[in-house]
Amino acid sequence: MNKAREFDQSALAELKALLGERVSTSAAVREHHGKDESYFPYAPPDAVVFVKTTEEVRDVVNICRRHHVPMIAFGVGTSLEGHILAIAGGVSIDLSQMNQVLAVHEEDLDAVVQAGVTRKQLNEYIKHTGLFFPIDPGADATLGGMTATRASGTNAVRYGTMRENVLSLKVVLADGRVIQTSRRAKKSAAGYDLTRLFVGSEGTLGIITEVTVRLYPVQDAMSAAVCAFPSIDAATRTVIQTLQMGIPVARCELLCATTMGALNKHNKLGYRESPTLFLEFHGTEASVVEQAKMVQEIAKENGGLDFQWATRPEDRTKIWEARHNAYFAVLQLKPGSRAVSTDVCVPISRLAECVAETAKEIAQASMPIPLFGHVGDGNFHLVILVDPKSESDMDEAKALNARLVKRALAMEGTCTGEHGIGMGKQESLRAELGEDVIDVMRDIKQLFDPDNLLNPGKLVPPQ
Amino acid sequence: MNKAREFDQSALAELKALLGERVSTSAAVREHHGKDESYFPYAPPDAVVFVKTTEEVRDVVNICRRHHVPMIAFGVGTSLEGHILAIAGGVSIDLSQMNQVLAVHEEDLDAVVQAGVTRKQLNEYIKHTGLFFPIDPGADATLGGMTATRASGTNAVRYGTMRENVLSLKVVLADGRVIQTSRRAKKSAAGYDLTRLFVGSEGTLGIITEVTVRLYPVQDAMSAAVCAFPSIDAATRTVIQTLQMGIPVARCELLCATTMGALNKHNKLGYRESPTLFLEFHGTEASVVEQAKMVQEIAKENGGLDFQWATRPEDRTKIWEARHNAYFAVLQLKPGSRAVSTDVCVPISRLAECVAETAKEIAQASMPIPLFGHVGDGNFHLVILVDPKSESDMDEAKALNARLVKRALAMEGTCTGEHGIGMGKQESLRAELGEDVIDVMRDIKQLFDPDNLLNPGKLVPPQ
Repeated sequence: MNKAREFDQSALAELKALLGERVSTSAAVREHHGKDESYFPYAPPDAVVFVKTTEEVRDVVNICRRHHVPMIAFGVGTSLEGHILAIAGGVSIDLSQMNQVLAVHEEDLDAVVQAGVTRKQLNEYIKHTGLFFPIDPGADATLGGMTATRASGTNAVRYGTMRENVLSLKVVLADGRVIQTSRRAKKSAAGYDLTRLFVGSEGTLGIITEVTVRLYPVQDAMSAAVCAFPSIDAATRTVIQTLQMGIPVARCELLCATTMGALNKHNKLGYRESPTLFLEFHGTEASVVEQAKMVQEIAKENGGLDFQWATRPEDRTKIWEARHNAYFAVLQLKPGSRAVSTDVCVPISRLAECVAETAKEIAQASMPIPLFGHVGDGNFHLVILVDPKSESDMDEAKALNARLVKRALAMEGTCTGEHGIGMGKQESLRAELGEDVIDVMRDIKQLFDPDNLLNPGKLVPPQ
Repeated sequence: MNKAREFDQSALAELKALLGERVSTSAAVREHHGKDESYFPYAPPDAVVFVKTTEEVRDVVNICRRHHVPMIAFGVGTSLEGHILAIAGGVSIDLSQMNQVLAVHEEDLDAVVQAGVTRKQLNEYIKHTGLFFPIDPGADATLGGMTATRASGTNAVRYGTMRENVLSLKVVLADGRVIQTSRRAKKSAAGYDLTRLFVGSEGTLGIITEVTVRLYPVQDAMSAAVCAFPSIDAATRTVIQTLQMGIPVARCELLCATTMGALNKHNKLGYRESPTLFLEFHGTEASVVEQAKMVQEIAKENGGLDFQWATRPEDRTKIWEARHNAYFAVLQLKPGSRAVSTDVCVPISRLAECVAETAKEIAQASMPIPLFGHVGDGNFHLVILVDPKSESDMDEAKALNARLVKRALAMEGTCTGEHGIGMGKQESLRAELGEDVIDVMRDIKQLFDPDNLLNPGKLVPPQ
């Protein structure tokens, strides 16, 4: 509460005049808004405002700007690199009550939503239309947050990431102007691509209040498959050959032997504890059968074992529930632990090599480090299980992550496939793209936010 | 030649010292670089330089900047909105000799090319790999030019536009810095999306010298189909229902009755002269059959006539040759005419209405106006056949285009689906996105090009 007292009281009074009870300076609310799912220490904001409309966001931005108060857009707090931590104090703008689906255009395969709508909420809302929104990061994040971090997930190999699936954005700029970045047409060559500039901008260039997203028809037939392999290399070969044949695999996930062991324990399953691919095929009845057969053939040539098919919805659900539980399952490998997640993504031709070199380090690490990820995109995660109170655990995790990023960059990869930069990857970004690119990004930040009030200290590395 | 004499002779001397014979001020070369495929009057540059490397582009940019000389990146001159016209004089930087394919990564499904490589050249080069690059604007444009205008074509309904298919760019900035916008990984959440900022920037923010593009496996089976309809509305319904069912149609083109008549005449064909869909299906043998059957069923319900299939490569080629000849075929409807092309794109639910209202105007126009386009994206073109010497023809064409843009904007559409803004659509851009967005674009232009030397007078509307 001490910090709140130092906070600009005239700004607070103006915010309260605007939003009444929807302004909070309580310790509990502030604490909740000062942490995400990363390993960074809590950094609560001075106040939290709960907004309901774009106009309210604009008014809050105008108040904060006049009083030189930092602003942090907040969805549900599931970011993984400290994105929403109020490291310079200020106001957390909680958009979770902006949760209206504004329009669903069934014929156009798109929907317009307020930024606080979550992905599961949207999919529930459109269930009756036969359409769905495919992007699925682990958490049930808001679409505003997913846009701001350029999120993806298990479906990206077929449906792309937020980059490909946002059609247009409504954004409040730092100076209070409200812009719509694009029309609702499926494609456009009309001027600079402001939509894509805000996708992945992590709240540092403006505050996203509405998102227009693409939807896809639920396919006639979906089938899942699980296949174990003698090595990660054999699994990766299978994926490369599948993609090269143009088989439109919808999901393609790799889980290491350690992860499979944790899954077996957590979900009482009996999978072979060996590197395993979880696959899904979408299409017509005939094409799904054909796809699965072709992949089974490829897997077999690469030494694949126990190829299991699931076409019944309940069996399919069981497989993907297991996959989605992987994160929670592996946490139990070291009770009381917290996870440091890595997120490199490399050209798929280098994936086996990158994973193999990393596996050597995992074998020597002092803690369990399960590995799984979106192998169809070349993106995989280590979940480094640390005792949050142990300095040596944290140091080991950070050093391991640093070496992993270095390895991925040497293979033309990126330090982050889908988690974003936030606080944790700024030096990696510099190493990845070089000082000139960082300077260009800093200039763009300066252009959109000359007073450095929009989520300060995130994404752009210090000079 | 008069203009060349006024041109900064010390800049010219420096350029000649750098490039020798690869600097030209001859009238013929300048004239060739002062026109594209638009209806705008010629605007030749003062000089043309033929560059071979990124370093040469950088050196040219440095010379031009020091002497305050405008620079216009030039590929093969097939832009449609006056993009490459030297309306403020200066140097045309011809990148057509930067035509090396630098790398093909078969396993990663990507290629790195110099900006002057054309789409057909790339596809010829990678033929043996079983991969292809799908984006196909009418012309055999360079990949640098296609990137700069955010081009698309008949395959966009399935494979996306240049926006979705550029992985990374090498760009020379106005101040001579050379940046690589991204790594080669398939996805990344690493910082602001500079790649997408340059895709569609029309040479106004930097000069693209290398492009990394996605490739796709040539599918096992491809089949084409042609189906006539009693009305454009019936054809459009068919497309909407096809997309809603999630049938992954690879191409989906609409041609009006007038266009079909011109095609019959030009190619000695016997198609029904009625609104017609040209379709293509890619996939496995079974899925292609299945897709075509499903679409045939949908077409039948909408009154489709003469559904013709083509699975043999030679029959398929014949169909797409006819489609690609449409532009030349319709030009012969009015001998000696020149084309004013329109390019609106609307949400597909509004397409039938937009086309129907436009058809009324076409019926009352004084010249033939065939209509065809990428109906799966909601994007269609009118080819307004004008006598280039007739002022009243030009006035009529411009007025018709202006009304069409207004109509599309009222339907949440865009003034340009794939041709870009250039000189011709600046006021439409303002109407489409509003003054605040234009101001943001102007600020971005100012940030990247403070001296306004990169393709001045294009894309960003005047204040």
